Amino acid sequence: MRIALLGGTGDIGEGLALRWAYHTDHEVLVGSRDPEKAREKADEYETELSSRGRDRKVNGFVNEMAAERAKVVVLAVPPYHVADTVEAVADGLEDGDVLVTPAAGMKRGDDGFHYHPPSAGSVTRLVADAAPDDVGVVGAFHNLAAGRLANVDAELGIDTLVVSDDPDAKETVMRLAEEIDGLRALDAGGVGNAAEVESVTPLLVNVAQNNDGMHDLGVRFQ
Amino acid sequence: MRIALLGGTGDIGEGLALRWAYHTDHEVLVGSRDPEKAREKADEYETELSSRGRDRKVNGFVNEMAAERAKVVVLAVPPYHVADTVEAVADGLEDGDVLVTPAAGMKRGDDGFHYHPPSAGSVTRLVADAAPDDVGVVGAFHNLAAGRLANVDAELGIDTLVVSDDPDAKETVMRLAEEIDGLRALDAGGVGNAAEVESVTPLLVNVAQNNDGMHDLGVRFQ
Repeated sequence: MRIALLGGTGDIGEGLALRWAYHTDHEVLVGSRDPEKAREKADEYETELSSRGRDRKVNGFVNEMAAERAKVVVLAVPPYHVADTVEAVADGLEDGDVLVTPAAGMKRGDDGFHYHPPSAGSVTRLVADAAPDDVGVVGAFHNLAAGRLANVDAELGIDTLVVSDDPDAKETVMRLAEEIDGLRALDAGGVGNAAEVESVTPLLVNVAQNNDGMHDLGVRFQ
Repeated sequence: MRIALLGGTGDIGEGLALRWAYHTDHEVLVGSRDPEKAREKADEYETELSSRGRDRKVNGFVNEMAAERAKVVVLAVPPYHVADTVEAVADGLEDGDVLVTPAAGMKRGDDGFHYHPPSAGSVTRLVADAAPDDVGVVGAFHNLAAGRLANVDAELGIDTLVVSDDPDAKETVMRLAEEIDGLRALDAGGVGNAAEVESVTPLLVNVAQNNDGMHDLGVRFQ
């Protein structure tokens, strides 16, 4: 399967790109608004994978081209760029393509971070509203420990919560998630349940900030 | 230390009562609006503990009396009874007493449960607003696996997130939490961060409902 990571030069994009390229045979495309930056990062990822004994081709493209070529498109961009990015790539998406959003809106308050969803109610709902009708929209990969994710030798032992109203798209993304060693995909229901999933992200930041020795956190349901 | 579990006849109250009575030497009081029910449940807990080789005295009282006698008062009542219960017991609380709220407002939606805080912003904030000024208010014990908690032989291996603006009260509650085998207390910051903590409760329900073989869930940050 061909997977495009839009914003694939950021930390979650990097982690997912490296993990899928390392653990699976899926073709990974790195997308960026700046195609030169996308190509540079793709080269970096190839070098990193090669140094770990895994020779994989990783290609970089401007977001629109990456999205057009892929079956699964991950919007690994900051929350305030999600709507623009969906708009930019919508024309290149085909019937049955899958759009995945890992973003969570946050706002810094007096003593911590707070969930700050867009007016749609959640980032996932915003994407579902903006995406073409025949594209499956899935919220997933919100609460990954980005540093550990990008270190393919690090054990994850964490969960990712997946929400979607499209059963096929959800199944595709859950399968892709579980192909990453140490990542378990849990079904959290439909898009209507996205806010509770996305609000774990500020919680992880607050827990990391208030407890010695805890950083780069993920979560495990047990 | 003397701990009162108001609503100590419900499932979270039962679990905390049994665990503290079993694992620690703290004195546990069971509170209920109905003193007869409180005494019956207290007797049940004594029998249960005794059957596991732990002879402990557990006393039952009407909520007001349980709260008046205790240093730490846990509001293990449904969210819609929290405000009434604080009001009922406020006069019996003393300077330095600690009021603990494990409740989370939830509402059932079309395809899952959603966080539904009171207008104060969170149940913890509501309690902080309603409590006497000299009483420390702490949000904790929201996301416990109630069934496992009430089975003192079951391994927990989960976390409880603790929020408070009162450092001494927070420390007291974190210590009490960690005295329960297999329960780790994590500091999630001040009362302003309570909404993100409380909204894990509906998330756990959604995860349990959508994944085979997952029920009675807790959460572990790692």
